[in-house]
Amino acid sequence: MEVHHQAAPAVSGGEGSRSSAGELLARCGAGLCSSVAGFGRKLGKIARDDPRRVAHSLKVGLALTLVSVLYYVRPLFNNWGLSTLWAVLTVVVVMEYTVGGTLIKGLNRAFATLAAGFLAVGAHKLADLCGAKGEPVLLAVFVFLLASAATFSRFIPEVKARYDYGVTIFILTFSLVAVSSYRVEELIRLAHQRFCTIAVGVATCLLTTVFVIPVWAGEDLHKLAAANLDKLAEFLEGLESECFGENGPGENLESKAFLYVYKSVLHSKATEDSLSNFAKWEPPHGKFFFRYPWSQYQNLGALSRQCASSMQALASYIITLTKSQVTANSSLHFRHQRIREPCLIYSLTALVFSQHPEANLELCLKARTACGEISLNSAKALRELSAAIRMMTVPSSAKTHMSAAIKAARTLGAELAEDDDLAKVMHVAVVASLLSELVVQTKKIAESVDNLAKSAHFKKPEEDTQKDVVINVGS
Amino acid sequence: MEVHHQAAPAVSGGEGSRSSAGELLARCGAGLCSSVAGFGRKLGKIARDDPRRVAHSLKVGLALTLVSVLYYVRPLFNNWGLSTLWAVLTVVVVMEYTVGGTLIKGLNRAFATLAAGFLAVGAHKLADLCGAKGEPVLLAVFVFLLASAATFSRFIPEVKARYDYGVTIFILTFSLVAVSSYRVEELIRLAHQRFCTIAVGVATCLLTTVFVIPVWAGEDLHKLAAANLDKLAEFLEGLESECFGENGPGENLESKAFLYVYKSVLHSKATEDSLSNFAKWEPPHGKFFFRYPWSQYQNLGALSRQCASSMQALASYIITLTKSQVTANSSLHFRHQRIREPCLIYSLTALVFSQHPEANLELCLKARTACGEISLNSAKALRELSAAIRMMTVPSSAKTHMSAAIKAARTLGAELAEDDDLAKVMHVAVVASLLSELVVQTKKIAESVDNLAKSAHFKKPEEDTQKDVVINVGS
Repeated sequence: MEVHHQAAPAVSGGEGSRSSAGELLARCGAGLCSSVAGFGRKLGKIARDDPRRVAHSLKVGLALTLVSVLYYVRPLFNNWGLSTLWAVLTVVVVMEYTVGGTLIKGLNRAFATLAAGFLAVGAHKLADLCGAKGEPVLLAVFVFLLASAATFSRFIPEVKARYDYGVTIFILTFSLVAVSSYRVEELIRLAHQRFCTIAVGVATCLLTTVFVIPVWAGEDLHKLAAANLDKLAEFLEGLESECFGENGPGENLESKAFLYVYKSVLHSKATEDSLSNFAKWEPPHGKFFFRYPWSQYQNLGALSRQCASSMQALASYIITLTKSQVTANSSLHFRHQRIREPCLIYSLTALVFSQHPEANLELCLKARTACGEISLNSAKALRELSAAIRMMTVPSSAKTHMSAAIKAARTLGAELAEDDDLAKVMHVAVVASLLSELVVQTKKIAESVDNLAKSAHFKKPEEDTQKDVVINVGS
Repeated sequence: MEVHHQAAPAVSGGEGSRSSAGELLARCGAGLCSSVAGFGRKLGKIARDDPRRVAHSLKVGLALTLVSVLYYVRPLFNNWGLSTLWAVLTVVVVMEYTVGGTLIKGLNRAFATLAAGFLAVGAHKLADLCGAKGEPVLLAVFVFLLASAATFSRFIPEVKARYDYGVTIFILTFSLVAVSSYRVEELIRLAHQRFCTIAVGVATCLLTTVFVIPVWAGEDLHKLAAANLDKLAEFLEGLESECFGENGPGENLESKAFLYVYKSVLHSKATEDSLSNFAKWEPPHGKFFFRYPWSQYQNLGALSRQCASSMQALASYIITLTKSQVTANSSLHFRHQRIREPCLIYSLTALVFSQHPEANLELCLKARTACGEISLNSAKALRELSAAIRMMTVPSSAKTHMSAAIKAARTLGAELAEDDDLAKVMHVAVVASLLSELVVQTKKIAESVDNLAKSAHFKKPEEDTQKDVVINVGS
């Protein structure tokens, strides 16, 4: 009975049925509870990851409540009526996570409204001259031309990056004012009201974002740059300790976290670009003065991403190498039990040499030490640079570490070049292995396209079905 | 006088001054003309690059004009008055470049308005029970709580990706309805009107995007996948002809376009993600059926980006190699004139061997041929895969090319491994060179941080100023 516990209620009688319904309900309840708890944990994680998110949510609530209260203060806005709602609308749409983002959106909204309002009033005056019949036609033509031109301007990259929201508001305001068939005097009064309420909305947003726990895009950009350098350093440190160090490489190198730490650096471009765009609009704050060189962070980011890309190549090479060596080792293990001498196990280079017990042990040790030194010194330099950015001090000892790394790399290069045979094949070997990596990845792409062809029901090519070659690509 | 032509007007008398003012005006006019012409050329290029952009701009104009015309048709919307403006607003905000984008925004707007409207009417009824004094306070509390909670929900990645716009509209509608102090019956009438006008706006947008020259996100995603594969193939083809071919490598390899063609693939993630998000919402069209496996394009894209990343590593290695070899060659050129034998000039591997005239010529030729074969066959496979995606046919001969490339890579590997000395150092050499690449890039990062420290006026570390080490990092 204990074993068949779950199936039992289905075969039992009335009492059982009722208890089964209860059980079902209880199970549903439990499932609901656990999924609610899971959702709660997820929310908690999001909040803990960056507590400023909670602050931002409360700030939006605060700004919106402030603006709504303005609406209730009758004496102040009594004669404006429904226009006050534009202030609420502005707050909802303009309020962004960072000060710079809010500022850009607010300015875009204010200036676009102003410009479009003027243009629309002008269009109205012009259309007025054409009499009652011509007016709607002329206005419709104006709306068509302006909306088309403004929409096309959004495809210009510079406009897209900075004024995308402004262009939307420009089209919106122009159409709204042009379409509404008020008299011009009334229009001007309305436009004035609308602009004032929008200004009130933007001001509320700015005051809330700047004075209540501000989130500066510039500061985030600054921290992102330092964090990216730290991640690059982490990769090199992991390389040093796991591949070239005293204890490495372990059995299961592929599962090590450090081999994937550069991935988030690779995808940081979009975040960086928008933060840098926002940061340029922020007023001086903290240690960031007026006309702070924000664009240099983008240069630094581009270099970091290129470095991460090289790390990806190295990591994928190491993973391929370890995999093939583990297979080779395990098969060798049975044939030559005594192959696993201490040095041979303890380093990546040794892994390579384990297939050739007669290999040059001295060179293996030298290469291991040199690779370890290169990694460690580069990592130290990166840590120092990251700390320098964080503390905003001139990096002092990074150069020492850098020159040590360069010296070690040169010495290793020279040592490898000392033996003529080695020097000769070194570059050929590197190009050949990188190309082989490309082949492996191209093969993966081919498999992915095959999967796509299957699930998307691609046709077989009609003229080729006869001579369709199916060759099993070696695995 | 001819020589001092530009400076002359400044020192001459009245007649000269007048002509100088005229000249200045003419120069300004010419400058304006040339910048206007430049801007026109830029716009022309944007339009020629993708003529659908012009179509989209005209479509936005058309949809907006259609909706405005509705406003003028008095008998239809006479009793709705100002609410009709919401249709205009909806068209401006909802109209996106692709069908999927418009659909997502339209659905988000419609459902968020509906949900928020119901909630707000409920809140009003609840607040009504608290009397005239309690009502505004309770409504303000509701607005605060709901806006905070909804804003926080935007930090959940899934909500951010799909419902970001919906959440904005939800907050907006709830605040607008809650704040407006109408009676509940009037509210329901207003809500009904607003929803209907929004539906009219969304319908106008959808009809225009679907029936007038539609831009399908799915089709763009499909084409992007094929184009990315073509770019990868272009790199490999360039490699084959410029580095391992009969005519290569040329003098100035660094300036070749093919060495940078993978860059746009590296940064295609954001576009791909948004297109795939839109494509999932699009109705079946063309060859893309209901529940088409769009997510597989994201897998393929991830693999393409990893391949591009490996290409970047290979390209930067080749560039470094060519630079150092060109320097070495030119210095060698004077010492050993007869070093530049045909084979030695004609291949990248030869470039390597040019430092060692006594090198194994046979291996050099073999490696060159093998590398060329690997590149060419991989490129052919990629072209075939790209064509298969474009034509939506099962790739038939890609496997043949793929296995040829794999075979060539294996043969080369085996040949290099035949010589025990070569096999021994091959992996060490690869890891060492990849690490050296990392060192070069780390050095660039260090220089970039130095520049930042200078232009951002970073402080010197106080305790370290005494022992501040300035070591000239070797160049």
